[in-house]
Amino acid sequence: MRILDGEDFHAGREPVSYCLAIQTDRGLVFASDSRTHGGVDQVNAYSKMHRFEVSGERVFVLLSAGNLSTTQSVVHRIDRQFEKPAGHGLLRAATLFDAAEYVGGMSRDIRNDHVAHNADANFDASFLIGGQIRGQAPEICLVYPEGNCIRAPAEKPFLQIGETQYGKPILDRIVTPSTPLDDAARCALVSLDSTMRSNLAVGPPIELAIYERDALRLSRHQRYEADAPWLLDLQASWSATVARGMRVLPRFPWERSETEAP
Amino acid sequence: MRILDGEDFHAGREPVSYCLAIQTDRGLVFASDSRTHGGVDQVNAYSKMHRFEVSGERVFVLLSAGNLSTTQSVVHRIDRQFEKPAGHGLLRAATLFDAAEYVGGMSRDIRNDHVAHNADANFDASFLIGGQIRGQAPEICLVYPEGNCIRAPAEKPFLQIGETQYGKPILDRIVTPSTPLDDAARCALVSLDSTMRSNLAVGPPIELAIYERDALRLSRHQRYEADAPWLLDLQASWSATVARGMRVLPRFPWERSETEAP
Repeated sequence: MRILDGEDFHAGREPVSYCLAIQTDRGLVFASDSRTHGGVDQVNAYSKMHRFEVSGERVFVLLSAGNLSTTQSVVHRIDRQFEKPAGHGLLRAATLFDAAEYVGGMSRDIRNDHVAHNADANFDASFLIGGQIRGQAPEICLVYPEGNCIRAPAEKPFLQIGETQYGKPILDRIVTPSTPLDDAARCALVSLDSTMRSNLAVGPPIELAIYERDALRLSRHQRYEADAPWLLDLQASWSATVARGMRVLPRFPWERSETEAP
Repeated sequence: MRILDGEDFHAGREPVSYCLAIQTDRGLVFASDSRTHGGVDQVNAYSKMHRFEVSGERVFVLLSAGNLSTTQSVVHRIDRQFEKPAGHGLLRAATLFDAAEYVGGMSRDIRNDHVAHNADANFDASFLIGGQIRGQAPEICLVYPEGNCIRAPAEKPFLQIGETQYGKPILDRIVTPSTPLDDAARCALVSLDSTMRSNLAVGPPIELAIYERDALRLSRHQRYEADAPWLLDLQASWSATVARGMRVLPRFPWERSETEAP
Protein backbone atom coordinates (compact mmCIF):
# COMPACT_ATOMS: atom_id res chain seq x y z
CA MET A 1 0.00 0.00 0.00
CA ARG A 2 2.77 2.43 0.90
CA ILE A 3 4.68 1.20 -2.08
CA LEU A 4 1.94 1.64 -4.62
CA ASP A 5 -0.21 4.62 -3.86
CA GLY A 6 2.50 7.22 -4.20
CA GLU A 7 1.45 8.94 -1.00
CA ASP A 8 4.74 10.80 -0.84
CA PHE A 9 3.70 12.76 -3.89
CA HIS A 10 0.80 14.32 -2.03
CA ALA A 11 2.13 14.62 1.49
CA GLY A 12 4.00 17.91 1.35
CA ARG A 13 7.33 16.19 0.81
CA GLU A 14 9.26 17.23 -2.26
CA PRO A 15 9.15 14.00 -4.22
CA VAL A 16 11.83 14.65 -6.83
CA SER A 17 15.08 16.54 -7.45
CA TYR A 18 18.30 16.83 -5.59
CA CYS A 19 20.22 20.10 -5.44
CA LEU A 20 23.06 21.18 -3.20
CA ALA A 21 25.26 24.19 -2.59
CA ILE A 22 28.61 24.38 -0.80
CA GLN A 23 30.21 27.51 0.64
CA THR A 24 33.95 27.39 1.27
CA ASP A 25 36.53 30.05 2.06
CA ARG A 26 37.43 30.21 -1.63
CA GLY A 27 33.96 30.40 -3.16
CA LEU A 28 30.80 28.48 -3.92
CA VAL A 29 29.81 25.24 -5.63
CA PHE A 30 26.34 24.40 -6.93
CA ALA A 31 25.07 21.09 -8.32
CA SER A 32 21.66 19.88 -9.43
CA ASP A 33 19.94 17.01 -11.19
CA SER A 34 17.30 17.55 -13.89
CA ARG A 35 14.48 15.09 -13.24
CA THR A 36 10.90 16.23 -12.80
CA HIS A 37 7.68 14.34 -12.95
CA GLY A 38 3.99 14.54 -12.36
CA GLY A 39 3.43 10.82 -11.89
CA VAL A 40 5.37 7.95 -13.37
CA ASP A 41 4.01 8.54 -16.89
CA GLN A 42 5.18 12.13 -17.04
CA VAL A 43 8.90 12.12 -16.40
CA ASN A 44 10.91 14.96 -17.93
CA ALA A 45 14.25 16.71 -17.76
CA TYR A 46 14.24 20.38 -16.79
CA SER A 47 17.22 22.41 -15.68
CA LYS A 48 16.94 23.33 -12.02
CA MET A 49 19.97 25.63 -12.09
CA HIS A 50 19.19 29.26 -12.91
CA ARG A 51 21.94 31.85 -13.24
CA PHE A 52 21.52 35.62 -12.91
CA GLU A 53 24.49 37.90 -13.36
CA VAL A 54 25.43 41.55 -13.70
CA SER A 55 29.10 41.03 -14.37
CA GLY A 56 31.30 42.84 -11.86
CA GLU A 57 28.27 43.76 -9.75
CA ARG A 58 26.33 40.73 -8.60
CA VAL A 59 26.01 37.01 -9.35
CA PHE A 60 23.22 34.69 -8.21
CA VAL A 61 22.70 30.98 -8.77
CA LEU A 62 19.22 29.71 -7.92
CA LEU A 63 18.53 25.97 -7.57
CA SER A 64 14.94 24.78 -7.36
CA ALA A 65 13.08 21.69 -6.13
CA GLY A 66 9.41 20.92 -5.70
CA ASN A 67 6.40 22.07 -7.68
CA LEU A 68 7.53 22.86 -11.22
CA SER A 69 4.94 25.56 -11.89
CA THR A 70 5.84 27.43 -8.70
CA THR A 71 9.57 27.32 -9.49
CA GLN A 72 8.96 28.41 -13.10
CA SER A 73 6.80 31.33 -11.92
CA VAL A 74 9.56 32.47 -9.58
CA VAL A 75 12.30 32.13 -12.20
CA HIS A 76 10.18 33.88 -14.82
CA ARG A 77 9.67 36.88 -12.56
CA ILE A 78 13.39 37.14 -11.78
CA ASP A 79 14.22 36.83 -15.49
CA ARG A 80 11.97 39.83 -16.14
CA GLN A 81 13.74 41.82 -13.42
CA PHE A 82 17.10 41.24 -15.07
CA GLU A 83 15.80 42.38 -18.48
CA LYS A 84 15.66 46.03 -17.41
CA PRO A 85 18.70 47.96 -16.17
CA ALA A 86 16.49 49.79 -13.66
CA GLY A 87 14.94 46.54 -12.49
CA HIS A 88 13.99 45.64 -8.97
CA GLY A 89 13.97 42.50 -6.83
CA LEU A 90 17.20 40.51 -7.07
CA LEU A 91 18.74 43.25 -9.16
CA ARG A 92 18.44 45.63 -6.20
CA ALA A 93 18.70 43.29 -3.18
CA ALA A 94 21.16 44.83 -0.70
CA THR A 95 22.43 41.49 0.63
CA LEU A 96 22.28 37.85 -0.36
CA PHE A 97 20.05 37.11 2.61
CA ASP A 98 17.69 39.86 1.40
CA ALA A 99 17.67 38.17 -2.01
CA ALA A 100 16.82 34.84 -0.37
CA GLU A 101 13.94 36.39 1.61
CA TYR A 102 12.72 38.05 -1.58
CA VAL A 103 12.65 34.69 -3.41
CA GLY A 104 10.94 33.15 -0.39
CA GLY A 105 8.22 35.78 -0.35
CA MET A 106 7.56 35.34 -4.08
CA SER A 107 7.48 31.57 -3.85
CA ARG A 108 5.20 31.54 -0.80
CA ASP A 109 2.78 34.04 -2.38
CA ILE A 110 2.58 32.01 -5.61
CA ARG A 111 2.02 28.82 -3.63
CA ASN A 112 -0.61 30.38 -1.35
CA ASP A 113 -2.48 31.82 -4.32
CA HIS A 114 -2.74 28.36 -5.89
CA VAL A 115 -3.61 26.71 -2.58
CA ALA A 116 -6.44 29.21 -2.08
CA HIS A 117 -8.04 27.77 -5.22
CA ASN A 118 -6.94 24.12 -4.80
CA ALA A 119 -6.70 23.25 -1.14
CA ASP A 120 -5.68 19.62 -1.60
CA ALA A 121 -2.83 20.00 -4.07
CA ASN A 122 0.78 20.67 -3.18
CA PHE A 123 2.40 23.74 -4.73
CA ASP A 124 5.43 23.79 -2.40
CA ALA A 125 8.83 24.72 -3.82
CA SER A 126 12.22 24.97 -2.12
CA PHE A 127 15.25 26.88 -3.33
CA LEU A 128 18.93 27.25 -2.76
CA ILE A 129 20.29 30.66 -3.64
CA GLY A 130 23.94 31.63 -3.57
CA GLY A 131 26.28 34.18 -5.04
CA GLN A 132 27.95 37.45 -4.23
CA ILE A 133 27.08 41.13 -4.29
CA ARG A 134 30.00 43.55 -4.79
CA GLY A 135 31.48 44.66 -1.47
CA GLN A 136 30.09 41.68 0.44
CA ALA A 137 31.16 38.09 1.10
CA PRO A 138 29.81 35.22 -1.03
CA GLU A 139 27.03 33.28 0.66
CA ILE A 140 24.44 30.52 0.20
CA CYS A 141 20.91 30.31 1.67
CA LEU A 142 18.11 27.75 1.73
CA VAL A 143 14.58 29.05 1.06
CA TYR A 144 11.67 26.98 2.49
CA PRO A 145 8.22 26.73 0.87
CA GLU A 146 6.92 28.85 3.77
CA GLY A 147 9.16 31.70 2.56
CA ASN A 148 11.63 31.66 5.45
CA CYS A 149 15.38 31.23 4.91
CA ILE A 150 18.51 29.92 6.60
CA ARG A 151 22.24 30.29 5.99
CA ALA A 152 24.67 27.35 5.83
CA PRO A 153 26.09 26.08 9.13
CA ALA A 154 29.65 27.28 9.83
CA GLU A 155 31.27 23.87 10.46
CA LYS A 156 29.59 21.91 7.67
CA PRO A 157 29.00 24.67 5.13
CA PHE A 158 26.56 23.04 2.72
CA LEU A 159 22.81 23.15 2.09
CA GLN A 160 20.56 20.69 0.24
CA ILE A 161 17.00 20.55 -1.11
CA GLY A 162 14.90 17.71 -2.51
CA GLU A 163 16.08 14.14 -1.89
CA THR A 164 18.75 15.23 0.57
CA GLN A 165 19.49 12.19 2.69
CA TYR A 166 21.17 9.73 0.32
CA GLY A 167 23.94 12.18 -0.53
CA LYS A 168 24.43 13.73 2.91
CA PRO A 169 26.90 11.27 4.52
CA ILE A 170 29.63 11.97 1.96
CA LEU A 171 29.22 15.74 2.41
CA ASP A 172 29.28 15.37 6.20
CA ARG A 173 32.59 13.54 5.94
CA ILE A 174 34.35 15.76 3.41
CA VAL A 175 33.12 19.36 3.24
CA THR A 176 34.74 21.97 5.50
CA PRO A 177 35.33 25.71 5.02
CA SER A 178 38.89 24.99 3.83
CA THR A 179 37.99 22.40 1.16
CA PRO A 180 39.43 23.53 -2.21
CA LEU A 181 36.71 24.48 -4.71
CA ASP A 182 37.45 21.75 -7.25
CA ASP A 183 37.51 19.13 -4.47
CA ALA A 184 34.17 20.43 -3.19
CA ALA A 185 32.82 20.17 -6.75
CA ARG A 186 33.98 16.55 -7.03
CA CYS A 187 32.36 15.77 -3.68
CA ALA A 188 29.12 17.38 -4.87
CA LEU A 189 29.12 15.15 -7.97
CA VAL A 190 29.73 12.00 -5.91
CA SER A 191 26.87 13.04 -3.62
CA LEU A 192 24.58 13.51 -6.64
CA ASP A 193 25.72 10.27 -8.27
CA SER A 194 25.04 8.23 -5.11
CA THR A 195 21.59 9.77 -4.91
CA MET A 196 20.79 8.96 -8.55
CA ARG A 197 21.75 5.33 -8.01
CA SER A 198 19.46 5.01 -4.99
CA ASN A 199 16.44 7.03 -6.12
CA LEU A 200 14.78 7.10 -9.52
CA ALA A 201 13.31 10.51 -8.76
CA VAL A 202 16.76 12.03 -9.26
CA GLY A 203 18.25 11.85 -12.75
CA PRO A 204 20.59 13.33 -15.35
CA PRO A 205 21.70 15.63 -16.85
CA ILE A 206 23.71 16.89 -13.89
CA GLU A 207 24.64 20.58 -13.77
CA LEU A 208 27.61 21.98 -11.90
CA ALA A 209 28.54 25.62 -11.28
CA ILE A 210 31.61 26.97 -9.53
CA TYR A 211 31.98 30.52 -8.28
CA GLU A 212 35.39 31.81 -7.22
CA ARG A 213 35.26 34.34 -4.40
CA ASP A 214 35.30 37.97 -5.60
CA ALA A 215 35.17 37.03 -9.31
CA LEU A 216 31.70 38.63 -9.56
CA ARG A 217 30.96 36.42 -12.53
CA LEU A 218 30.35 32.67 -12.65
CA SER A 219 33.67 30.86 -13.06
CA ARG A 220 32.45 27.51 -14.43
CA HIS A 221 29.21 25.99 -15.59
CA GLN A 222 29.12 22.37 -16.73
CA ARG A 223 26.29 20.12 -17.85
CA TYR A 224 26.86 16.36 -17.85
CA GLU A 225 24.59 13.97 -19.72
CA ALA A 226 24.30 10.45 -18.28
CA ASP A 227 26.96 9.17 -20.70
CA ALA A 228 29.42 12.07 -20.39
CA PRO A 229 32.90 10.46 -20.38
CA TRP A 230 34.17 12.58 -17.50
CA LEU A 231 31.14 11.65 -15.37
CA LEU A 232 31.59 7.96 -16.22
CA ASP A 233 35.25 8.22 -15.12
CA LEU A 234 34.18 9.77 -11.84
CA GLN A 235 31.58 7.05 -11.26
CA ALA A 236 34.07 4.28 -12.06
CA SER A 237 36.67 5.78 -9.75
CA TRP A 238 34.22 6.06 -6.86
CA SER A 239 32.85 2.56 -7.40
CA ALA A 240 36.40 1.20 -7.28
CA THR A 241 37.04 3.16 -4.08
CA VAL A 242 33.97 1.71 -2.38
CA ALA A 243 34.71 -1.85 -3.52
CA ARG A 244 38.34 -1.60 -2.36
CA GLY A 245 37.26 0.04 0.90
CA MET A 246 34.95 -2.87 1.67
CA ARG A 247 37.77 -5.36 1.04
CA VAL A 248 40.16 -3.65 3.46
CA LEU A 249 37.69 -3.21 6.35
CA PRO A 250 38.83 -4.95 9.55
CA ARG A 251 37.91 -8.64 9.91
CA PHE A 252 35.56 -9.71 12.69
CA PRO A 253 37.36 -11.43 15.61
CA TRP A 254 35.83 -14.80 14.62
CA GLU A 255 37.23 -14.48 11.08
CA ARG A 256 40.74 -14.05 12.48
CA SER A 257 40.45 -17.14 14.63
CA GLU A 258 39.02 -19.12 11.72
CA THR A 259 42.02 -18.10 9.63
CA GLU A 260 44.48 -18.98 12.38
CA ALA A 261 42.91 -22.36 13.03
CA PRO A 262 44.60 -25.25 11.21
CA MET B 1 9.71 26.98 11.10
CA ARG B 2 10.43 23.62 9.48
CA ILE B 3 13.58 23.45 11.50
CA LEU B 4 12.06 24.18 14.87
CA ASP B 5 8.60 22.77 15.17
CA GLY B 6 9.53 19.14 14.76
CA GLU B 7 6.75 18.53 12.28
CA ASP B 8 8.35 15.27 11.23
CA PHE B 9 7.49 13.85 14.62
CA HIS B 10 3.78 14.23 13.95
CA ALA B 11 3.55 13.59 10.23
CA GLY B 12 3.36 9.82 10.08
CA ARG B 13 7.05 9.52 9.28
CA GLU B 14 9.10 7.37 11.63
CA PRO B 15 11.36 9.98 13.16
CA VAL B 16 14.02 7.79 14.77
CA SER B 17 15.83 4.45 14.43
CA TYR B 18 17.57 2.73 11.60
CA CYS B 19 17.34 -1.03 11.14
CA LEU B 20 18.27 -3.18 8.18
CA ALA B 21 18.23 -6.82 7.15
CA ILE B 22 20.15 -8.52 4.34
CA GLN B 23 19.31 -11.86 2.76
CA THR B 24 22.09 -13.62 0.87
CA ASP B 25 22.47 -17.13 -0.50
CA ARG B 26 24.37 -18.09 2.65
CA GLY B 27 22.09 -16.63 5.29
CA LEU B 28 20.84 -13.43 6.89
CA VAL B 29 22.31 -10.33 8.52
CA PHE B 30 20.46 -7.98 10.84
CA ALA B 31 21.63 -4.64 12.25
CA SER B 32 19.96 -1.96 14.35
CA ASP B 33 20.69 1.19 16.30
CA SER B 34 19.27 1.81 19.78
CA ARG B 35 18.11 5.42 19.90
CA THR B 36 14.55 6.36 20.82
CA HIS B 37 13.06 9.63 21.87
CA GLY B 38 9.85 11.41 22.61
CA GLY B 39 11.16 14.92 22.02
CA VAL B 40 14.69 16.22 22.41
CA ASP B 41 14.53 16.10 26.22
CA GLN B 42 13.65 12.41 26.35
CA VAL B 43 16.34 10.54 24.46
CA ASN B 44 16.98 6.94 25.47
CA ALA B 45 18.65 3.74 24.36
CA TYR B 46 16.43 0.68 23.82
CA SER B 47 17.33 -2.46 21.98
CA LYS B 48 15.39 -2.76 18.73
CA MET B 49 16.61 -6.27 17.99
CA HIS B 50 14.42 -9.04 19.38
CA ARG B 51 15.37 -12.71 19.01
CA PHE B 52 12.99 -15.66 19.22
CA GLU B 53 14.30 -19.17 18.83
CA VAL B 54 13.29 -22.79 19.20
CA SER B 55 16.68 -24.29 18.49
CA GLY B 56 16.61 -26.71 15.56
CA GLU B 57 13.03 -25.75 14.75
CA ARG B 58 12.66 -22.04 14.03
CA VAL B 59 14.58 -18.79 14.45
CA PHE B 60 13.19 -15.27 14.14
CA VAL B 61 14.88 -11.90 14.48
CA LEU B 62 12.49 -8.95 14.76
CA LEU B 63 13.74 -5.37 14.29
CA SER B 64 11.46 -2.48 15.22
CA ALA B 65 11.16 1.22 14.41
CA GLY B 66 8.52 3.80 15.19
CA ASN B 67 6.26 4.17 18.20
CA LEU B 68 7.95 2.56 21.17
CA SER B 69 4.78 1.54 22.98
CA THR B 70 3.42 -0.21 19.88
CA THR B 71 6.67 -2.12 19.32
CA GLN B 72 6.89 -3.08 23.00
CA SER B 73 3.29 -4.36 22.95
CA VAL B 74 4.07 -6.51 19.91
CA VAL B 75 7.30 -7.89 21.39
CA HIS B 76 5.64 -8.54 24.75
CA ARG B 77 2.93 -10.62 23.10
CA ILE B 78 5.44 -12.67 21.13
CA ASP B 79 7.55 -13.20 24.27
CA ARG B 80 4.47 -14.66 25.95
CA GLN B 81 3.88 -16.99 22.99
CA PHE B 82 7.40 -18.39 23.31
CA GLU B 83 6.99 -19.01 27.04
CA LYS B 84 4.66 -21.95 26.46
CA PRO B 85 5.62 -25.04 24.44
CA ALA B 86 2.07 -25.20 23.08
CA GLY B 87 2.08 -21.51 22.19
CA HIS B 88 0.58 -19.94 19.12
CA GLY B 89 1.44 -17.04 16.81
CA LEU B 90 5.10 -17.03 15.74
CA LEU B 91 5.61 -20.35 17.43
CA ARG B 92 3.14 -21.93 15.02
CA ALA B 93 3.48 -19.79 11.86
CA ALA B 94 3.78 -22.12 8.86
CA THR B 95 6.04 -19.79 6.85
CA LEU B 96 8.12 -16.71 7.46
CA PHE B 97 5.71 -14.65 5.37
CA ASP B 98 2.88 -15.89 7.59
CA ALA B 99 4.90 -14.79 10.61
CA ALA B 100 5.37 -11.34 9.05
CA GLU B 101 1.65 -11.00 8.36
CA TYR B 102 0.92 -12.12 11.91
CA VAL B 103 3.22 -9.40 13.33
CA GLY B 104 1.63 -6.90 10.93
CA GLY B 105 -1.87 -7.75 12.09
CA MET B 106 -0.89 -7.39 15.75
CA SER B 107 0.92 -4.11 15.20
CA ARG B 108 -1.92 -2.63 13.14
CA ASP B 109 -4.55 -3.66 15.69
CA ILE B 110 -2.56 -2.16 18.57
CA ARG B 111 -2.05 1.03 16.59
CA ASN B 112 -5.70 1.28 15.54
CA ASP B 113 -6.87 0.73 19.09
CA HIS B 114 -4.76 3.67 20.30
CA VAL B 115 -5.73 5.84 17.35
CA ALA B 116 -9.42 5.21 18.11
CA HIS B 117 -8.84 6.96 21.43
CA ASN B 118 -6.25 9.56 20.30
CA ALA B 119 -6.88 10.51 16.73
CA ASP B 120 -4.07 13.07 16.42
CA ALA B 121 -1.17 11.04 17.77
CA ASN B 122 1.02 8.69 15.78
CA PHE B 123 1.23 5.09 16.98
CA ASP B 124 2.79 3.71 13.76
CA ALA B 125 5.47 1.05 14.01
CA SER B 126 7.42 -0.74 11.28
CA PHE B 127 9.23 -4.05 11.57
CA LEU B 128 11.75 -6.21 9.79
CA ILE B 129 11.38 -9.90 10.48
CA GLY B 130 13.71 -12.58 9.25
CA GLY B 131 14.74 -16.09 10.07
CA GLN B 132 14.11 -19.65 9.07
CA ILE B 133 11.55 -22.36 9.79
CA ARG B 134 12.79 -25.94 9.47
CA GLY B 135 12.24 -27.33 5.98
CA GLN B 136 12.02 -23.90 4.37
CA ALA B 137 14.48 -21.32 3.04
CA PRO B 138 15.62 -18.40 5.22
CA GLU B 139 13.85 -15.15 4.41
CA ILE B 140 13.37 -11.51 5.45
CA CYS B 141 10.22 -9.38 5.28
CA LEU B 142 9.29 -5.76 5.93
CA VAL B 143 6.08 -5.11 7.90
CA TYR B 144 4.38 -1.75 7.37
CA PRO B 145 2.34 0.09 10.05
CA GLU B 146 -0.75 -0.77 8.00
CA GLY B 147 -0.04 -4.45 8.63
CA ASN B 148 0.93 -5.42 5.09
CA CYS B 149 4.28 -7.03 4.24
CA ILE B 150 6.82 -7.33 1.46
CA ARG B 151 9.77 -9.63 0.78
CA ALA B 152 13.23 -8.37 -0.21
CA PRO B 153 13.86 -7.68 -3.91
CA ALA B 154 15.82 -10.44 -5.66
CA GLU B 155 18.60 -8.31 -7.14
CA LYS B 156 19.26 -6.07 -4.15
CA PRO B 157 18.28 -8.38 -1.31
CA PHE B 158 18.01 -5.97 1.63
CA LEU B 159 15.22 -4.20 3.51
CA GLN B 160 15.35 -1.14 5.77
CA ILE B 161 13.08 0.67 8.26
CA GLY B 162 13.38 4.05 9.99
CA GLU B 163 15.93 6.53 8.64
CA THR B 164 16.62 4.47 5.54
CA GLN B 165 18.03 6.89 2.99
CA TYR B 166 21.42 7.89 4.39
CA GLY B 167 22.64 4.31 4.47
CA LYS B 168 21.04 3.07 1.25
CA PRO B 169 23.69 4.05 -1.35
CA ILE B 170 26.36 1.80 0.17
CA LEU B 171 23.94 -1.16 0.27
CA ASP B 172 22.88 -0.49 -3.33
CA ARG B 173 26.50 -0.66 -4.41
CA ILE B 174 27.62 -3.70 -2.42
CA VAL B 175 24.87 -6.14 -1.50
CA THR B 176 24.02 -8.97 -3.89
CA PRO B 177 22.73 -12.52 -3.28
CA SER B 178 26.31 -13.84 -3.48
CA THR B 179 27.86 -11.45 -0.94
CA PRO B 180 29.57 -13.48 1.83
CA LEU B 181 27.80 -13.14 5.19
CA ASP B 182 30.65 -11.45 7.04
CA ASP B 183 31.08 -8.96 4.16
CA ALA B 184 27.36 -8.23 4.25
CA ALA B 185 27.65 -7.68 8.02
CA ARG B 186 30.51 -5.21 7.53
CA CYS B 187 28.50 -3.39 4.88
CA ALA B 188 25.53 -3.21 7.26
CA LEU B 189 27.73 -1.63 9.93
CA VAL B 190 29.13 0.95 7.48
CA SER B 191 25.56 1.77 6.44
CA LEU B 192 24.56 2.24 10.10
CA ASP B 193 27.68 4.26 10.89
CA SER B 194 27.10 6.65 7.98
CA THR B 195 23.52 7.13 9.13
CA MET B 196 24.57 7.87 12.71
CA ARG B 197 27.01 10.52 11.53
CA SER B 198 24.34 12.28 9.46
CA ASN B 199 21.32 11.99 11.76
CA LEU B 200 21.16 12.47 15.51
CA ALA B 201 17.98 10.37 15.65
CA VAL B 202 20.08 7.26 15.07
CA GLY B 203 22.56 6.30 17.80
CA PRO B 204 24.52 3.58 19.59
CA PRO B 205 24.71 0.91 20.83
CA ILE B 206 24.64 -0.92 17.51
CA GLU B 207 23.44 -4.52 17.43
CA LEU B 208 24.41 -7.06 14.80
CA ALA B 209 23.06 -10.58 14.27
CA ILE B 210 24.19 -13.13 11.70
CA TYR B 211 22.22 -16.22 10.76
CA GLU B 212 23.87 -18.97 8.73
CA ARG B 213 21.50 -20.77 6.40
CA ASP B 214 20.09 -24.02 7.86
CA ALA B 215 21.75 -23.52 11.28
CA LEU B 216 18.28 -23.13 12.87
CA ARG B 217 19.86 -21.14 15.68
CA LEU B 218 21.33 -17.66 15.61
CA SER B 219 25.02 -17.84 14.67
CA ARG B 220 26.25 -14.51 16.04
CA HIS B 221 24.87 -11.67 18.10
CA GLN B 222 27.06 -8.64 18.83
CA ARG B 223 26.38 -5.40 20.62
CA TYR B 224 28.76 -2.48 20.06
CA GLU B 225 28.85 0.55 22.35
CA ALA B 226 29.93 3.84 20.75
CA ASP B 227 33.51 3.32 21.96
CA ALA B 228 33.85 -0.38 21.11
CA PRO B 229 37.40 -0.79 19.74
CA TRP B 230 36.32 -2.96 16.82
CA LEU B 231 33.69 -0.41 15.80
CA LEU B 232 36.24 2.42 16.06
CA ASP B 233 38.60 0.43 13.80
CA LEU B 234 35.82 -0.02 11.26
CA GLN B 235 34.98 3.69 11.34
CA ALA B 236 38.63 4.70 10.96
CA SER B 237 39.10 2.31 8.05
CA TRP B 238 36.05 3.61 6.23
CA SER B 239 36.96 7.25 6.87
CA ALA B 240 40.40 6.59 5.39
CA THR B 241 38.79 4.92 2.38
CA VAL B 242 36.55 7.90 1.71
CA ALA B 243 39.35 10.44 2.17
CA ARG B 244 41.66 8.49 -0.13
CA GLY B 245 38.86 7.96 -2.65
CA MET B 246 38.27 11.70 -2.86
CA ARG B 247 41.97 12.33 -3.50
CA VAL B 248 42.15 9.89 -6.40
CA LEU B 249 38.98 11.05 -8.22
CA PRO B 250 39.67 12.27 -11.77
CA ARG B 251 40.72 15.92 -12.17
CA PHE B 252 38.46 18.31 -14.05
CA PRO B 253 39.73 19.17 -17.55
CA TRP B 254 40.61 22.72 -16.46
CA GLU B 255 42.76 21.39 -13.60
CA ARG B 256 44.82 19.38 -16.06
CA SER B 257 45.44 22.40 -18.28
CA GLU B 258 46.32 24.53 -15.24
CA THR B 259 48.89 21.92 -14.24
CA GLU B 260 50.33 21.69 -17.74
CA ALA B 261 50.66 25.46 -18.15
CA PRO B 262 54.11 26.86 -17.32
